[in-house]
Amino acid sequence: MPSVIGIDIGGTHIRANLVDEKGQTIGIHKFITGKKRDSKSMVELLAQNIEGLILQKKPSKIIAVGMGVPGIVNPAEGIVYSSPHFPEWHDFPIAQKLSAHISLPVFIDNDAKLIALGESRYGAAQDWNMFLMLTLGTGIGGAIMIDKEIFHGTRGFAAEFGHLNLEQEGLPCGCGSHGCFETLVSSTALIRMLREIADSRLSSDLKILKESTKDNDSEIGQKLSAFARKGDGVALSLYQKMGANLGRGLASLINVMGIEKIVLGGGISQAHDLFLKAAKDELKKRIYAKTYEDIEIRPARLGDEAGILGAGLLAFRKAKPL
Amino acid sequence: MPSVIGIDIGGTHIRANLVDEKGQTIGIHKFITGKKRDSKSMVELLAQNIEGLILQKKPSKIIAVGMGVPGIVNPAEGIVYSSPHFPEWHDFPIAQKLSAHISLPVFIDNDAKLIALGESRYGAAQDWNMFLMLTLGTGIGGAIMIDKEIFHGTRGFAAEFGHLNLEQEGLPCGCGSHGCFETLVSSTALIRMLREIADSRLSSDLKILKESTKDNDSEIGQKLSAFARKGDGVALSLYQKMGANLGRGLASLINVMGIEKIVLGGGISQAHDLFLKAAKDELKKRIYAKTYEDIEIRPARLGDEAGILGAGLLAFRKAKPL
Repeated sequence: MPSVIGIDIGGTHIRANLVDEKGQTIGIHKFITGKKRDSKSMVELLAQNIEGLILQKKPSKIIAVGMGVPGIVNPAEGIVYSSPHFPEWHDFPIAQKLSAHISLPVFIDNDAKLIALGESRYGAAQDWNMFLMLTLGTGIGGAIMIDKEIFHGTRGFAAEFGHLNLEQEGLPCGCGSHGCFETLVSSTALIRMLREIADSRLSSDLKILKESTKDNDSEIGQKLSAFARKGDGVALSLYQKMGANLGRGLASLINVMGIEKIVLGGGISQAHDLFLKAAKDELKKRIYAKTYEDIEIRPARLGDEAGILGAGLLAFRKAKPL
Repeated sequence: MPSVIGIDIGGTHIRANLVDEKGQTIGIHKFITGKKRDSKSMVELLAQNIEGLILQKKPSKIIAVGMGVPGIVNPAEGIVYSSPHFPEWHDFPIAQKLSAHISLPVFIDNDAKLIALGESRYGAAQDWNMFLMLTLGTGIGGAIMIDKEIFHGTRGFAAEFGHLNLEQEGLPCGCGSHGCFETLVSSTALIRMLREIADSRLSSDLKILKESTKDNDSEIGQKLSAFARKGDGVALSLYQKMGANLGRGLASLINVMGIEKIVLGGGISQAHDLFLKAAKDELKKRIYAKTYEDIEIRPARLGDEAGILGAGLLAFRKAKPL
């Protein structure tokens, strides 16, 4: 049976695996991205790990590679225009460059869009024809799924939910604007809020966490959620504040799209028990009552597998002879 | 040749006409809505005017009626859930009720969506496959056109652009939320801004306009734009302030949808010369540079005909035997 390689490129790790037509993978092959990787060394890293994966798993026949890439991606042309995690990439034809290295066709899309495709086919949204996906991490990734397919807009840039504007002034955002959704709802936002609180209001746990230099953002987020669950009122209030802003952003997205089904993925969504009620309370205040009744918010189900499976689906669809 | 009747229901006027398959109409048959019309008397008014139109124009064969209705509309079921202009309507099965009166099939959709369909087929957006339509009047109506068709979302409520949230606090909106797009961009917003300015800062023209009780909102808007064009700095500043808010809302819509083509319709769009530059300046600050290059904003071209033609198209599509 032919298989493909599904890859999900993240800021700190890259996950890759063989995927068969039924969406079966074997474990996850994970390797370190390395900070500030330029386009040339990224292609080498990918090629090297793809070869390693093939040597290790000895598939009978590989027909293509599918790859989710964070950032502004033109899937039709296989180009990454820009990526928040890789500031040196500009108009990077990653599909063509990697394809030349490994002699396989390579297809790409935005990472959150392929995660949504994975959840649509194999995960939390199998029974939904339309839904919105938000991946909550250091920023917000998004996808609009219509008739179980990714909606791309004219050039592939649809669903930049992180740059929905919530505040006219507001914090500067990496995109050049101010007051974007992801400046208020993200691990970055949680940590910023924590650091803005005076020490005198913090428990000793949070004081230590606030000053931590050895933990990365994701680790700080995990500790913060653990403290909130143990009853730290300040930690909990940060999640609730973020939840209210999530609700306000979701209200706008639902009003604009007329789609009431939501999947929340990404690292922060693991703490959904801490902020989903606040989000729904805010939504209720801001949404037409009949629409509110239809709203359903589910956590993603496939975790790190979603992006690989979505990338695998993309590769099969694009590569398979009809 | 068979024809249909296209109707566009507005808060103050109803416009109706015969439409043939080529989108030809003869003049516009316009009649007064009358304030606070309940559902029963609206059906009677419509039936009476449809009969008048048929008597007057003597078409050979009418196969259906298409109708654009302001408010939250479920087109599949022919129901208006609620309408800002007709607060007494709740879950009003207008299509079925009117159909019973006139013995013709009746099909409905939201008014702004049918205006967009008209502009797509016969007006400003004939060369665009995807675009967003905003009708700027006492509120904001919206439509998302994908592959030259209206996108409805799951139940028909897509494109409620007027309720994109721009301010967490902010003015109360008819929808129950606060700080919605249409509280900042509409004739209502312009007039409110005018009334908030101290008399000492106003020219004598604006002072009179501010106190006017004989003009309706639309008339005040027209006079305000005339003063702005004649060089009244305060009048111009109101349009520019509104334009900046329009730009901020459009930035969010474009980021969410990945669609960069915009048609602006509705009464206020006639003053686009006064606010479009301010909108574009704001957009430029808030949108990824590559996306900004693709942005094109056009005024609607069909005026009051658009809704009738869109309604006519709807009627032909739904009624015609395949």
